[in-house]
Amino acid sequence: MASSKPDIAFIGLGAMGFGMATNLVKQGYKVTGFDVWAPTLERFKAEGGLAATTPAEAVKGKDYCVCMVATAQQAQAVLLEGENAAVPALPQGAAVLLCSTVPCSYVQDLERQLASAGRSDIQLVDAPVSGGAYRAADGTLSIMAGAPDAAIEKSRFLLQEMSDPTKLYIVAGGIGAGSNMKMVHQVLAANQILATSEALGFAAHLGLDLQKATATVIASQGKSWMFEHRSPRSLHPEFQPIASAITIILKDTGIITAEARKAGFPTPMTSAAEQVYFTGVGRGYGADDDSSLVRLYWEGKGKVGPVAGKTQTEEEKLALVVGLLKGIHLCSAGECIAFAARLGLDLDQVFELCINAAGGSAMLEAVGPEMMSLVKTTGAASGVPAGDSLDKVVGELQDAVDEAQRLKAPIFLGSQALNLTRLAMAHRPRTAAAATSGTVVKVWGS
Amino acid sequence: MASSKPDIAFIGLGAMGFGMATNLVKQGYKVTGFDVWAPTLERFKAEGGLAATTPAEAVKGKDYCVCMVATAQQAQAVLLEGENAAVPALPQGAAVLLCSTVPCSYVQDLERQLASAGRSDIQLVDAPVSGGAYRAADGTLSIMAGAPDAAIEKSRFLLQEMSDPTKLYIVAGGIGAGSNMKMVHQVLAANQILATSEALGFAAHLGLDLQKATATVIASQGKSWMFEHRSPRSLHPEFQPIASAITIILKDTGIITAEARKAGFPTPMTSAAEQVYFTGVGRGYGADDDSSLVRLYWEGKGKVGPVAGKTQTEEEKLALVVGLLKGIHLCSAGECIAFAARLGLDLDQVFELCINAAGGSAMLEAVGPEMMSLVKTTGAASGVPAGDSLDKVVGELQDAVDEAQRLKAPIFLGSQALNLTRLAMAHRPRTAAAATSGTVVKVWGS
Repeated sequence: MASSKPDIAFIGLGAMGFGMATNLVKQGYKVTGFDVWAPTLERFKAEGGLAATTPAEAVKGKDYCVCMVATAQQAQAVLLEGENAAVPALPQGAAVLLCSTVPCSYVQDLERQLASAGRSDIQLVDAPVSGGAYRAADGTLSIMAGAPDAAIEKSRFLLQEMSDPTKLYIVAGGIGAGSNMKMVHQVLAANQILATSEALGFAAHLGLDLQKATATVIASQGKSWMFEHRSPRSLHPEFQPIASAITIILKDTGIITAEARKAGFPTPMTSAAEQVYFTGVGRGYGADDDSSLVRLYWEGKGKVGPVAGKTQTEEEKLALVVGLLKGIHLCSAGECIAFAARLGLDLDQVFELCINAAGGSAMLEAVGPEMMSLVKTTGAASGVPAGDSLDKVVGELQDAVDEAQRLKAPIFLGSQALNLTRLAMAHRPRTAAAATSGTVVKVWGS
Repeated sequence: MASSKPDIAFIGLGAMGFGMATNLVKQGYKVTGFDVWAPTLERFKAEGGLAATTPAEAVKGKDYCVCMVATAQQAQAVLLEGENAAVPALPQGAAVLLCSTVPCSYVQDLERQLASAGRSDIQLVDAPVSGGAYRAADGTLSIMAGAPDAAIEKSRFLLQEMSDPTKLYIVAGGIGAGSNMKMVHQVLAANQILATSEALGFAAHLGLDLQKATATVIASQGKSWMFEHRSPRSLHPEFQPIASAITIILKDTGIITAEARKAGFPTPMTSAAEQVYFTGVGRGYGADDDSSLVRLYWEGKGKVGPVAGKTQTEEEKLALVVGLLKGIHLCSAGECIAFAARLGLDLDQVFELCINAAGGSAMLEAVGPEMMSLVKTTGAASGVPAGDSLDKVVGELQDAVDEAQRLKAPIFLGSQALNLTRLAMAHRPRTAAAATSGTVVKVWGS
């Protein structure tokens, strides 16, 4: 069997790429890796991989090339620019799986550049991933792949090797659609990574035991995949291990807000998060794990003069933390789904992908179906299970914002979410019955 | 003449109160001051004032008492709490002018407390001020006074001594109306103080000469009273002199957002500003001049890794700074006017007061009339001069947000303003003609 497996070139052996490439090695593939950072190549050889010194050398004679660099600029550099770029060295008809998170516009431009270079024979697949370094190494990522049918069929086995059997999504729409799908997923990621830091910072201002607060959140409707995965690192004294740098989520966040601006689409949640990420990199924290942003939230505790919170019991305080997260997740779900609708993505697929990937949250599961029914221009909206009343979620969130104000604790996302729900309510017909929480999605337009 | 002037008690000799009280001394009044900080009493005596050691001693036998402490808690303490509080020592029928910025709900509660204490004879005037320490000392403040007619008439001469002849506003609605008027004015102040720091921080990231940028802004539609007054202190190496501490504007900001939350009114601009103020006090900057918040914006320059802005010429860069401020001021004007309408204030009075006080901006002057016509439930909206097209203001703002993203420069308010305009556009009827910029006010509800 092993001998029938094609050789693979793998460009970009960072936090994600290294795990993905070594997983392929473990699955019996001969994988030739390339990375600009020499030590990682040594580590890769120790794991049974082969090392190349240029992209061109890595891909020479390989029918498959996976590219998992950090940015569109890096992809452009390794694939097309310079005399040692990969594309000119690829055999006729080779597949290129671009797994990096890049703007839709970049991967579509890449397709055009291949044609201009006379390399339309290359079977490009727009295949961004989600799931973090552990799932990368485990071959159980979520993958959202867009490409012409022939390219998908040629690469399907390889996509399957890298993904969980239930988490390989073929996204309709060809090149660019996979990146758009990843982008709307990252709306959830960008907000929920920061929400974890915000909630734990708020918990610190409240004087809660942070381990207990974490356990409470994970057992509540304030739960998210990001909270489960980031909170242990936020509470580590050195924010270790560094699983995903702040610069990485800032890059993804920037793709969302820049593409949204081009489309004239408002992203109040993601934009608020982005400003905090800018603040973090401006403090010099860019290379640190994104869970370390909790520093920006709790550093002021004890330095803001006398404060007097109103909540007395631990139970009340824990409820505020949960209410904060529920409110944020409600609005990040709304922004994700409204943006997906604007981009014309298959909303059912968006929902299924997101609840099973790093963007998942209890709130999204509860309100997603109703939100989707509200933004769909066709099809029946009736019979969709609806979440809590908007008044209930807003009331809990407002309690948290009130208390944070008394404590002079920053809660950028919670404050934003509360204002968004209020804006949504201001546009609700006055005759309407009490709204369900999913109706907040209407604030993004109707 | 001087002998006919009544004696005045003045409680609270801080940055504002000291100037107000010494101005009264200069106008020939015998003024007895009280402050918890002894050195300021010595300074006051040097200026010709008299000093009391308790509030009760200060007001004894005085028919007029001006209270200019920093917060509602302090007002409550000096007026009513403890054995040396002022109210029990006041003669029958004395006037109390509460000039502090407090929530409407507090001053209304104070009126009830006076009645409960059997002191309905006291002629309370709800009389917050605006204009800064220089105008306080000059007797040319803006004052917004709400009270029953008899109380206003009794105190009118004193209000006139402290205010510019054209800037004494008698606000209809009695006790609480003055504080509500001050509160909506402070929507402009809270945003435009921070906008000054944001614009100068952005200018620093752009590599502009900051003195030149300041001069350009002041000659442009991005001009505001706050920018003119704060920018020199932002550019002072030690942010001197300390004319108004960050804790002061944070306190006013908190009144706005807390009262808005009680009313279910969204304040996305002021809330975004408040989060940055929390960050500033959390960094330990609370006692510094509010112009020093520019530190939070420019500290990241050179620490965010390689960045590549697109704008080349100084002229283009200056236009981005102006576009940023115009966009922020457009949205702070909208939030101010929409909130004033929600509170039932006289919008024409709000506008006249604000453009002539510390909240004034070129943008408010340009778009205020149209915004007022749009939120008025009665009266004709036609014939109101309209500002630039919304597309133009949004386009300029988007250019600034795009460039700030490329530079990884935080612009909390500019980013928020852009998203608000996009939300407003998403709710515009699709058949509508190109909107004028004042229509952004509709995002707060209609």
